[in-house]
Amino acid sequence: MTRPLRLHPDRLLPADPATRTLARDLYESVAGLPIISPHGHTDPRWFATNAPFGNATELLLAPDHYIFRMLYSQGVRLEDLGLGGSGADPRAAWRLFAERYQLFRGTPSRIWLDWVFAEAFGIDVALEAQTSDLYFDTITEKLASPDYAPRALFERFNIEVIATTESPLDTLEHHDAIRASGWQGRVITAYRPDPVIDPEFEGFQANIDRFSAITGEDCRTWQGYLAAHRQRRAFFARMGATSTDHGHPTARTADLPHAEAEALFDRVVTGKGTSGDAELFRAQMLTEMAAMSLEDGLVMQLHPGSFRNHNARVFERFGRDKGADIPVSTEYVRALKPLLDRFGNEADFTLILFTLDESVYARELAPLAGHYPCLRLGPAWWFHDSPEGMRRFRRSVTETAGFYNTVGFNDDTRAFLSIPARHDLARRIDCGFLAELVMEHRLEDWEAAELARDLAYDLAKKAYKL
Amino acid sequence: MTRPLRLHPDRLLPADPATRTLARDLYESVAGLPIISPHGHTDPRWFATNAPFGNATELLLAPDHYIFRMLYSQGVRLEDLGLGGSGADPRAAWRLFAERYQLFRGTPSRIWLDWVFAEAFGIDVALEAQTSDLYFDTITEKLASPDYAPRALFERFNIEVIATTESPLDTLEHHDAIRASGWQGRVITAYRPDPVIDPEFEGFQANIDRFSAITGEDCRTWQGYLAAHRQRRAFFARMGATSTDHGHPTARTADLPHAEAEALFDRVVTGKGTSGDAELFRAQMLTEMAAMSLEDGLVMQLHPGSFRNHNARVFERFGRDKGADIPVSTEYVRALKPLLDRFGNEADFTLILFTLDESVYARELAPLAGHYPCLRLGPAWWFHDSPEGMRRFRRSVTETAGFYNTVGFNDDTRAFLSIPARHDLARRIDCGFLAELVMEHRLEDWEAAELARDLAYDLAKKAYKL
Amino acid sequence: MTRPLRLHPDRLLPADPATRTLARDLYESVAGLPIISPHGHTDPRWFATNAPFGNATELLLAPDHYIFRMLYSQGVRLEDLGLGGSGADPRAAWRLFAERYQLFRGTPSRIWLDWVFAEAFGIDVALEAQTSDLYFDTITEKLASPDYAPRALFERFNIEVIATTESPLDTLEHHDAIRASGWQGRVITAYRPDPVIDPEFEGFQANIDRFSAITGEDCRTWQGYLAAHRQRRAFFARMGATSTDHGHPTARTADLPHAEAEALFDRVVTGKGTSGDAELFRAQMLTEMAAMSLEDGLVMQLHPGSFRNHNARVFERFGRDKGADIPVSTEYVRALKPLLDRFGNEADFTLILFTLDESVYARELAPLAGHYPCLRLGPAWWFHDSPEGMRRFRRSVTETAGFYNTVGFNDDTRAFLSIPARHDLARRIDCGFLAELVMEHRLEDWEAAELARDLAYDLAKKAYKL
Repeated sequence: MTRPLRLHPDRLLPADPATRTLARDLYESVAGLPIISPHGHTDPRWFATNAPFGNATELLLAPDHYIFRMLYSQGVRLEDLGLGGSGADPRAAWRLFAERYQLFRGTPSRIWLDWVFAEAFGIDVALEAQTSDLYFDTITEKLASPDYAPRALFERFNIEVIATTESPLDTLEHHDAIRASGWQGRVITAYRPDPVIDPEFEGFQANIDRFSAITGEDCRTWQGYLAAHRQRRAFFARMGATSTDHGHPTARTADLPHAEAEALFDRVVTGKGTSGDAELFRAQMLTEMAAMSLEDGLVMQLHPGSFRNHNARVFERFGRDKGADIPVSTEYVRALKPLLDRFGNEADFTLILFTLDESVYARELAPLAGHYPCLRLGPAWWFHDSPEGMRRFRRSVTETAGFYNTVGFNDDTRAFLSIPARHDLARRIDCGFLAELVMEHRLEDWEAAELARDLAYDLAKKAYKL
Repeated sequence: MTRPLRLHPDRLLPADPATRTLARDLYESVAGLPIISPHGHTDPRWFATNAPFGNATELLLAPDHYIFRMLYSQGVRLEDLGLGGSGADPRAAWRLFAERYQLFRGTPSRIWLDWVFAEAFGIDVALEAQTSDLYFDTITEKLASPDYAPRALFERFNIEVIATTESPLDTLEHHDAIRASGWQGRVITAYRPDPVIDPEFEGFQANIDRFSAITGEDCRTWQGYLAAHRQRRAFFARMGATSTDHGHPTARTADLPHAEAEALFDRVVTGKGTSGDAELFRAQMLTEMAAMSLEDGLVMQLHPGSFRNHNARVFERFGRDKGADIPVSTEYVRALKPLLDRFGNEADFTLILFTLDESVYARELAPLAGHYPCLRLGPAWWFHDSPEGMRRFRRSVTETAGFYNTVGFNDDTRAFLSIPARHDLARRIDCGFLAELVMEHRLEDWEAAELARDLAYDLAKKAYKL
Repeated sequence: MTRPLRLHPDRLLPADPATRTLARDLYESVAGLPIISPHGHTDPRWFATNAPFGNATELLLAPDHYIFRMLYSQGVRLEDLGLGGSGADPRAAWRLFAERYQLFRGTPSRIWLDWVFAEAFGIDVALEAQTSDLYFDTITEKLASPDYAPRALFERFNIEVIATTESPLDTLEHHDAIRASGWQGRVITAYRPDPVIDPEFEGFQANIDRFSAITGEDCRTWQGYLAAHRQRRAFFARMGATSTDHGHPTARTADLPHAEAEALFDRVVTGKGTSGDAELFRAQMLTEMAAMSLEDGLVMQLHPGSFRNHNARVFERFGRDKGADIPVSTEYVRALKPLLDRFGNEADFTLILFTLDESVYARELAPLAGHYPCLRLGPAWWFHDSPEGMRRFRRSVTETAGFYNTVGFNDDTRAFLSIPARHDLARRIDCGFLAELVMEHRLEDWEAAELARDLAYDLAKKAYKL
């Protein structure tokens, strides 16, 4: 006997009946709004080639670090899931997942996945050992049909615009192909310069050489290096980019005098820099990027606080992004001061802050964003992109920063099929939060209705200039 | 068409119907209790002269950093709000605020302001662009009438006692005038010695000279300096003070041997001290102040953890207290040990701790206050003086420190008209919390009724010896 | 007139009626399960001798630091409660407690104690001044009866297995006596080597000598010292131990080359080590213990982050464990890396992490446990072993680590009579949390039923290999 899979229409709405009624009304008013996805990691190649996705494992399991990290934590070998080019049988890998689907109880992955299964693939039985093959076959078969090609899904998902993320060394050929194709889907890029800014990034020295080659600038001089950034930022902007993104270990910024910055760059680019230099260079480059944003209008995003590749053995064997990035305590108040001293009062500049350290929501981020004209707060991120995480975010930041210093939702995902589920979850949780404020007479109902739309749609468009 | 402004009688009470009924009963039993305001920043001049307040902008907007920080964060220039002696038109400034009132949705300022508009001024339409002039005129006109003079409002607000905060350099002439006037309102002072204790305070050296002048002690000797404190504390106590207050960057305390303390003082007072010396001196002075509290019975308050004047440009142009104070992570366990080693076990000494770092509520403050006889916990402070902030406070500290190691509510405000709104909000939230405990049978109803009164009235009177 | 004492059948369940109904059903399905107590501090002598407990004060008051710390915080002298061998009259001590029972409102101690009074002793009036003698007499009298002997209570409490905690220097004679007695109660030990691992532990040098004497190894050599651990671990395992436990100031681990570890040991054991050496030695020993766990299969527990004996005067007069241990901020991500680099990927090794710093739940612990095969998360601990503390734990860790990287409940107590109350509280809170997930359709009802049993019983048995 299989168990049914059902998505309840009231899922994720508050339990109290009156609050739920209010929340449902708010949710229904925004459920059909197009998706604005200003920050994420989908692959532009999908939309350029429109080639069908492969099988269930290849699409849903192998690339999703939320899933395989949990399986790994319970003793499943990554090789057996097909990671690291292991050549594992995808059907067998799927079974390992199906047999352990209970591990995801209470996690957002479960919510996203059930949406994908039920809504994207029309499956009506729950995933478990005995339905493993049914799932694998149903999904794999459907993926081969034109209705499940990337562009068809993009349209069916009602995506108004989606941003991918590329390195300055990327040629953006896929974005170019999308534009040349005549297809109307709006897929834009974002400028993510970590590989040429972070001296501790794998292949940094080679990246600098490629940066020179791709721009024609001498990126081993400070002026040439900065000019190369300007050139690539302009190119990215022509390919639709409205933002940059910076994934640093800390939020530290610096504003060194020109000569010191140049000397620091020289040490770093000749491989003579210490790890302190690396940190200082990243800090300095945030301020340089901010200066360029004032020139070219690109919105700046900062994602600090992840200890990347914490598991040495997994990194060695399987590489980056394998579920072993662990958040660390992150300080913003002193860290951001050099940048804010220079650009904090510029209302034309936007710096969107994210965090993996929830203890800073009420203590640091909301007070900063509730004062500095340039600052906005990104949504609950990564491990906190979840019902409880979003509630903690709203409850912690709203009272000091309000709603209008936040920027709506980011899905931040490479799991393309989960995008509608993620936005849907965010809309439900935000509407639940608004309904709670109305129930406590902290907000009028008409205000909640305006805010529901702002949080689901307008704030993201405005903050990211979309 | 204007929208109505209504204060719902059940505002801020929990949504669950049965819990709300319990909370309402509790709230109604304490709603009419007089206000005890043991810590705040109202201006004693108001009550001394009883001169009418000016216009709406001057009274409600320009002095309220909660308001102008939010407006500033969304691009409004502080000059245009009348800050920095800009001479901006108050009606135009009010309009900038009215047009952006939606920014305050979800913030406590909105709750306090709506109370002021509806209850203090009897306005029954919502603030927005089209009601801006109506608001400005109504408020400004009423302020000119005797019913809105400071003393009349004090009485109407049912304030039993209010403490202001003054520097040791203050002559307390207004407090003297209040007492001499025969008016029965109880306005007392509190001893806030930061300007003569913090070597990094603006004008510290000049302050030391004035400290000598005002006391007749030689405040450039360690003994003279300490004697000057003793003298001023005694004077403040005669002017009604029952407490001292200390706004330090950190909670660090020190207990140096006499000779070391003296040598440290010498460095600091001759301007030869490092920034490490400044921190150590502040630390040592907390212990000195504690020692004096044991002598004179003044209750000690510590408010650490704010990075003051974070925005260099705003500080330069507009000065202190302009909404750019940002909380930082604050440690208490090691920091307080020197002071606690000396006075922690004295049941006759009271040190009330505040924090802007909520991560210490359950981890450090509740365990400390649940053990040391001298310690009590101040209420949710500043950015956390809000519905969610107060709930986090109660949920985080009660299980370890209980209710009786807390001290009731502080409004901590210079926004005089909001004082009843702030106490009302605190009473509602506390009654809601108590009702939740009763609903879960963690508390009997008669206990909740006792506690509602304790939290609204008795604990503050007792802790502050009022 | 006395007030009644009643335990409401729905206590601690969520207020919302539909959620409460669900929670009640879940709770009823697990309320009768046997107690698994894998980590605690009861005295094995009780079960070995089965001698009756003494009077009310001796059993319930004097050994319970939750109680006397609160009384002390409100000015009650520890001598007057009978601590420090003061010889205080137990009836008078009990009265000091009874008169101040309101201090415990809102604390878990109140919940545990009311259970003990009502369920264990059948008292039906509330504790207050006028019932003080009634309580003292009723409890003291019942304790003398065979029904209240340790083994009888053990059986009545439906304890399937309980672990005590002993030092390697303990002879385990009581455990031996229990086994020899033919009594069927399962009382096992756990290996807690802090006294011979922490160079800053009182009597460390003497402990090392006793460690040599008890094992016949030369514990002043690195090899002998490690061999002694291996020998005692094996002995503890024979006496039923399935786990070790480590109470360190921090979570720091180290993995030094053999020669460095040996040199460090030499400094430490000759008393030449600095406090940095002490910290590094504790860190190194965690990794050594992990290595031994891989050999002998003992599950490892780490309890870091308590600043022990914070109150110098209380420690001097009354010794350890007198309610003056205060949590401090605790870092895990960098701290655990050396150990995890070596053993993190071993699925056969289990390291259960605890914390007193809730800010790490979502930031550090859940991401670590949601990735590393060896890691599991212990329940909300000590100050956080409370309704709100458990809710914060579940809400913070479940979304990233799921339920199956947690290990059920630990009572961690020496207050034997409160054990059923503590497990009951945990079951109620967990069932309430599960019911909330069902109400929001984040979980199916049949999943919640499975999980209720897992959290109440199965996970603890499995994680601790019981």
